Amino acid sequence: MKILILNGPNLNKLGRRDANQYGHETLDEIQKFITNRFPQHTFQFMQTNKEGELIDAIQAAEGKFDGIAANFGGYSHTSVAIRDALELIEIPVIEVHLSNIYSRESFRFQGITAAMADGVIAGLGKQSYVLGVRALEELK
Amino acid sequence: MKILILNGPNLNKLGRRDANQYGHETLDEIQKFITNRFPQHTFQFMQTNKEGELIDAIQAAEGKFDGIAANFGGYSHTSVAIRDALELIEIPVIEVHLSNIYSRESFRFQGITAAMADGVIAGLGKQSYVLGVRALEELK
Amino acid sequence: MKILILNGPNLNKLGRRDANQYGHETLDEIQKFITNRFPQHTFQFMQTNKEGELIDAIQAAEGKFDGIAANFGGYSHTSVAIRDALELIEIPVIEVHLSNIYSRESFRFQGITAAMADGVIAGLGKQSYVLGVRALEELK
Amino acid sequence: MKILILNGPNLNKLGRRDANQYGHETLDEIQKFITNRFPQHTFQFMQTNKEGELIDAIQAAEGKFDGIAANFGGYSHTSVAIRDALELIEIPVIEVHLSNIYSRESFRFQGITAAMADGVIAGLGKQSYVLGVRALEELK
Amino acid sequence: MKILILNGPNLNKLGRRDANQYGHETLDEIQKFITNRFPQHTFQFMQTNKEGELIDAIQAAEGKFDGIAANFGGYSHTSVAIRDALELIEIPVIEVHLSNIYSRESFRFQGITAAMADGVIAGLGKQSYVLGVRALEELK
Amino acid sequence: MKILILNGPNLNKLGRRDANQYGHETLDEIQKFITNRFPQHTFQFMQTNKEGELIDAIQAAEGKFDGIAANFGGYSHTSVAIRDALELIEIPVIEVHLSNIYSRESFRFQGITAAMADGVIAGLGKQSYVLGVRALEELK
Amino acid sequence: MKILILNGPNLNKLGRRDANQYGHETLDEIQKFITNRFPQHTFQFMQTNKEGELIDAIQAAEGKFDGIAANFGGYSHTSVAIRDALELIEIPVIEVHLSNIYSRESFRFQGITAAMADGVIAGLGKQSYVLGVRALEELK
Amino acid sequence: MKILILNGPNLNKLGRRDANQYGHETLDEIQKFITNRFPQHTFQFMQTNKEGELIDAIQAAEGKFDGIAANFGGYSHTSVAIRDALELIEIPVIEVHLSNIYSRESFRFQGITAAMADGVIAGLGKQSYVLGVRALEELK
Amino acid sequence: MKILILNGPNLNKLGRRDANQYGHETLDEIQKFITNRFPQHTFQFMQTNKEGELIDAIQAAEGKFDGIAANFGGYSHTSVAIRDALELIEIPVIEVHLSNIYSRESFRFQGITAAMADGVIAGLGKQSYVLGVRALEELK
Amino acid sequence: MKILILNGPNLNKLGRRDANQYGHETLDEIQKFITNRFPQHTFQFMQTNKEGELIDAIQAAEGKFDGIAANFGGYSHTSVAIRDALELIEIPVIEVHLSNIYSRESFRFQGITAAMADGVIAGLGKQSYVLGVRALEELK
Amino acid sequence: MKILILNGPNLNKLGRRDANQYGHETLDEIQKFITNRFPQHTFQFMQTNKEGELIDAIQAAEGKFDGIAANFGGYSHTSVAIRDALELIEIPVIEVHLSNIYSRESFRFQGITAAMADGVIAGLGKQSYVLGVRALEELK
Amino acid sequence: MKILILNGPNLNKLGRRDANQYGHETLDEIQKFITNRFPQHTFQFMQTNKEGELIDAIQAAEGKFDGIAANFGGYSHTSVAIRDALELIEIPVIEVHLSNIYSRESFRFQGITAAMADGVIAGLGKQSYVLGVRALEELK
Repeated sequence: MKILILNGPNLNKLGRRDANQYGHETLDEIQKFITNRFPQHTFQFMQTNKEGELIDAIQAAEGKFDGIAANFGGYSHTSVAIRDALELIEIPVIEVHLSNIYSRESFRFQGITAAMADGVIAGLGKQSYVLGVRALEELK
Repeated sequence: MKILILNGPNLNKLGRRDANQYGHETLDEIQKFITNRFPQHTFQFMQTNKEGELIDAIQAAEGKFDGIAANFGGYSHTSVAIRDALELIEIPVIEVHLSNIYSRESFRFQGITAAMADGVIAGLGKQSYVLGVRALEELK
Repeated sequence: MKILILNGPNLNKLGRRDANQYGHETLDEIQKFITNRFPQHTFQFMQTNKEGELIDAIQAAEGKFDGIAANFGGYSHTSVAIRDALELIEIPVIEVHLSNIYSRESFRFQGITAAMADGVIAGLGKQSYVLGVRALEELK
Repeated sequence: MKILILNGPNLNKLGRRDANQYGHETLDEIQKFITNRFPQHTFQFMQTNKEGELIDAIQAAEGKFDGIAANFGGYSHTSVAIRDALELIEIPVIEVHLSNIYSRESFRFQGITAAMADGVIAGLGKQSYVLGVRALEELK
Repeated sequence: MKILILNGPNLNKLGRRDANQYGHETLDEIQKFITNRFPQHTFQFMQTNKEGELIDAIQAAEGKFDGIAANFGGYSHTSVAIRDALELIEIPVIEVHLSNIYSRESFRFQGITAAMADGVIAGLGKQSYVLGVRALEELK
Repeated sequence: MKILILNGPNLNKLGRRDANQYGHETLDEIQKFITNRFPQHTFQFMQTNKEGELIDAIQAAEGKFDGIAANFGGYSHTSVAIRDALELIEIPVIEVHLSNIYSRESFRFQGITAAMADGVIAGLGKQSYVLGVRALEELK
Repeated sequence: MKILILNGPNLNKLGRRDANQYGHETLDEIQKFITNRFPQHTFQFMQTNKEGELIDAIQAAEGKFDGIAANFGGYSHTSVAIRDALELIEIPVIEVHLSNIYSRESFRFQGITAAMADGVIAGLGKQSYVLGVRALEELK
Repeated sequence: MKILILNGPNLNKLGRRDANQYGHETLDEIQKFITNRFPQHTFQFMQTNKEGELIDAIQAAEGKFDGIAANFGGYSHTSVAIRDALELIEIPVIEVHLSNIYSRESFRFQGITAAMADGVIAGLGKQSYVLGVRALEELK
Repeated sequence: MKILILNGPNLNKLGRRDANQYGHETLDEIQKFITNRFPQHTFQFMQTNKEGELIDAIQAAEGKFDGIAANFGGYSHTSVAIRDALELIEIPVIEVHLSNIYSRESFRFQGITAAMADGVIAGLGKQSYVLGVRALEELK
Repeated sequence: MKILILNGPNLNKLGRRDANQYGHETLDEIQKFITNRFPQHTFQFMQTNKEGELIDAIQAAEGKFDGIAANFGGYSHTSVAIRDALELIEIPVIEVHLSNIYSRESFRFQGITAAMADGVIAGLGKQSYVLGVRALEELK
Repeated sequence: MKILILNGPNLNKLGRRDANQYGHETLDEIQKFITNRFPQHTFQFMQTNKEGELIDAIQAAEGKFDGIAANFGGYSHTSVAIRDALELIEIPVIEVHLSNIYSRESFRFQGITAAMADGVIAGLGKQSYVLGVRALEELK
Repeated sequence: MKILILNGPNLNKLGRRDANQYGHETLDEIQKFITNRFPQHTFQFMQTNKEGELIDAIQAAEGKFDGIAANFGGYSHTSVAIRDALELIEIPVIEVHLSNIYSRESFRFQGITAAMADGVIAGLGKQSYVLGVRALEELK
């Protein structure tokens, strides 16, 4: 499978701080970990802090990837525009969160983008991505 | 008149899916349709998925266009920043929606940007743009 | 086309006061303006302050008119009964507002009746009616 | 002074029941009481259960009366249309309530029409009308 | 028994459309069905789209009828004035709904008028009226 | 017909207290009253204070009964689980309330389970059950 | 009659500013105006910025005054403690407001103290006090 | 690993109806599917419609199981008591949902129990359980 | 006195964890402590995780006990059914909480069951039970 | 122990009215009752209607008293300032209410000050103070 | 410049506790620090726990001071009366907070008094006062 | 010190319009004013309309600057993503607003980003930046 791993705002700073919230590994280390874990798949990794570039990437994924595992970070709770982008594509999308969004601030309970994902996985640190890839395997 | 037709996130995907919600024509076809309908005006068309580029375009329009017909897509309901940009320019702006926002999800009822438009037109598919241009003619 | 222009409560007082909100023309002048603008159509104009008479008029329009352009005034934001009436007829209805309802008191944001209209046009003064008629032309 | 005393829905049933809430006198007796109390003024009394007729009466009052004392009953808390009618006239209006609306059901706290009155008097039974007339005297 | 069957806005259009929501029979057919079902009672049927006429009818019913079965349509959810009218009469009133209001739009959950009825019956189509009459029999 | 009369928490205490709210008869007397009133039907009566046993009973009813008349008591306003159980069975269900839930505390307005019933009958004391049975007759 | 005119926070600054909201007269001038208007009554005037002193004054009034006309200023909308004080005394109390609280900021709509007054008078400038005294006369 | 698969109300009815929402397999078939998929683990399966039995099971799991994958059904959104039970145990818990709770009724957005789970997996049908087991493997 | 000490969900796990929130003693130790403290009374202790069994116990207490001290745990904030059970019995009930519910999560502020208790005691650890018994002594 | 019994607004009026809500004894009688009940303790009693004096008293108590039993009356539900004062002292504080705040108006449900007390006792009339003293004994 | 530094409830206890929230210096030390920092200005310092005395001080400041730097403590979030006092004076006022009110409890987000200040400075400990004085310098 | 002055959407249009809200100087003039005022510091100025570029700039600032004074414009009230970026850096950040956000539209009261700033300064026009720099000096 060809899989796009999409990371939104501030995830390029993983491992720098707040290790007990998000784990102590950097995004780079997590991406290597995923690649090693699934040698049978081809991955493309993208991280951007910009809402519009996430939409561009979602739109461009169709026809090029068999699935998306996406962590939209802070945009998960506010972006109607990303939600609309997800609604328009046909390849499966799994929304992934490192932390358990239900045990944090209340404004993180609102899942604007999650409503248009095929599945949601939260709270398992870097394993959330691993399970996201497995979910894409199962959905194929 | 020189008119800017501004389209926000995901409108580059028009006609691909959800035809009964938005119509079966692509953005390109709609733009040609507008050009043909109003041979007396000069149009510039711009589409972007990025909130900041929409603000740039609004700011740059003053002095260069006689009016803007804008469909801000998902940003219509969340963007205080676009609202502030509209408040600061003097050329007339008509906010345009393809679908009737009142008969969709409740988070689409909130018109953050619409409050700073000169007029709002919703629910008429590609004709919303045509009426948006006519509204600009009337406001001149 | 045979078109019904329906006006709800207090619109018989247009032009008397609050000219910068609604314009300085009377309802009568606006109706003449519409008639002159569209010599190709037959118009019937009706204004009433009574919610029930608006419902009667909507129900009676079917089979007699090709479309309705309606400004329900204050009932737009409260009348479930008018909403139900609109839901039951098949001819196209455009809801029209003189002022931009999004930049006024918050209780005007709720579009109870608008949800059942085919389109909504707001904020353009008497031109809202003109665009309402054009919208009906396009929907035919 | 020529004064219009306007009574809305169900006030024609005063004195029939719920005497400890509204007093034991009928609307007719209250109207005679007002006439006797103010022999120096000319009164016209009107009661209707219909929202639209109240709007008609408000619109028709201008030029014919020096002031209105109005009890809109249940419409006080829901009618945007009556509120808009009050906003459009220039003669003084005093909104009158027999009971203290603040010590009843919470949906009676909302003063949709009161916002456009010149004054509000509540809780004093038939004396609310008397004070309403005195308020009009003071405002002249 | 002498029974008043009161129908509010848009119920004169029953059977025309939305048959799977409300059934395929017209109001006239339903009224004949009720008359046939209960030959032992005398019925008066009234339908009006006007809130004030419903209040007039409720007020006039006392002394003339032994009970009211009423479907206030869209006014059920907004009319404080009809609620006040129900509170003032002494004959039993059963509020009737064709559809199950709990499984429709959330603004239909609010039972402003129902609070002052003796009983509420919802969701059973034309049988709601039949059960409304039976409820009046039981309450006698 | 074979009919299941299901009663939820605290209904085993009927007739003990609060007679003017619920009537002075015990659940046992009401059940005898129902049996006598409908000699043509076979009834099974069940009362439990436990949410899970109500779900068990609903699930077990299919294939064994022709309909259910159920008073879920306090669970009517909170139980998503009972709601889900009702959604999954195919035999008709009438939700029954002894008192008029609209004229009591506001947390009783929420009809979580009612949304999945075929009909709702409220406010008529033990007659609510009688009408519930009649509703099942009509739905057959 | 012996009447206590109670004024709460900031009313000692009347006439200094915001003349079109509250009038151009000082509290002293208003108090003289009241004394002259009602030579038949004995007045005591008290103004304090302190919530607790208002409660002291309300408690002390019983047995010494025949009624209170009180303008609690900003405390009207927040003070449960003043509300409780009003609930405990038996002499009549009229709550008075210079401006129409319904046409100002929404946090002024909440009438915490008004619920325990015998009557409420608002929007009539210094005449609100005059009418407050008249209301006390009528309540005697 | 010894794993407890806990299923709450109505999940014993899986596969009976609403196949496009939850899939066409029964709970029994899903449990066999899980057992076959993970021959290396020992599973205990439990389903109950009763909130208290779920709490009992959670409390009893400690010391006997290495992890729990739980689908609390309708109790997920209302049960503070289950939440408190989860907070008190130390073995890992993954909350599992067959459907995407974010794209259903709004009362399903509230994740009362999820806040105390180690991870949440939703929207993937029977694969949600598979991923739940994998998550427990990763957490070990 | 014969006193029933009723404990709801998860209180059988007291002393296991979260010692600084609830204290380090087990429920068994607390019950012995209560028995020793009040040798003059006869106690019956009951703990259950099941809402319905709590209702059964409340109903069964009348005639057998002189008072109830009850800690409903998580059901305190959600159970309308327990509230209704409390409303129907006549022996005094004191609701007891180990922790101060006002300084925890906001969903614990809602006292659904507390409204029907004779008194509420919170925040004092095992002493809350001691004071609950004393309160029952005083109420006798 | 040296104990401060603090009483807030309107509690100096106890026993005057509303006896079935608060009991028929005066504050003075209650204070004597407390003194007699606990001859082993030294009490200081203070009552004031003023929010600021309550804060002064709380601040001054540290070092002079071993505990405070306080009834803040109406300020319990609104005073952030008293809450902050409680947060800053180290001696134990028990908040006391004569009536059950959960069965009164909803604005009394909010426990702004209670969140910073060590314990809360409500609904037991003058016994609430007795239990408050006992709670202080236990906390020592 | 002559500057009034106004401190509200509990600020006389600064430095006693919660040092990481508010700093470890006493109010006295902070006031000396301010005096030393700005030898060119004359300061008057006032602290009171009483809402009314803060209003008195604000009213008395006009004509005597060139500006006010005020920390209203807990009253910032509740006092409409202080807000009204600020609205009535003409000398500049800077509202000052030691801590960042946006990262504390949600009831501290509401800036009732701040709306009438010329500027707001929060989160910088004793430096908030220093910046408050500088802001007054700039506004002169 | 090396200081980054960050300006968000529409601040490049300062001085063009709405001078009484924001002052009549351009952003360029304000930046020169800051440079002249603090010759001892090195400034870098950045303005962008794009949310993602603000996040990029915040992330890049660490190690290169000693502090940030940031005006996020309309994003202050909506951007969870900028909030998360601020949470992850260690250099001090002062949030700056030209106008007093508490006296404008209510959607500007929500300080999503402010919660993660070290201090907030609002309402002082270009002096807000000056004070922001001073705050950074004090925090060093």
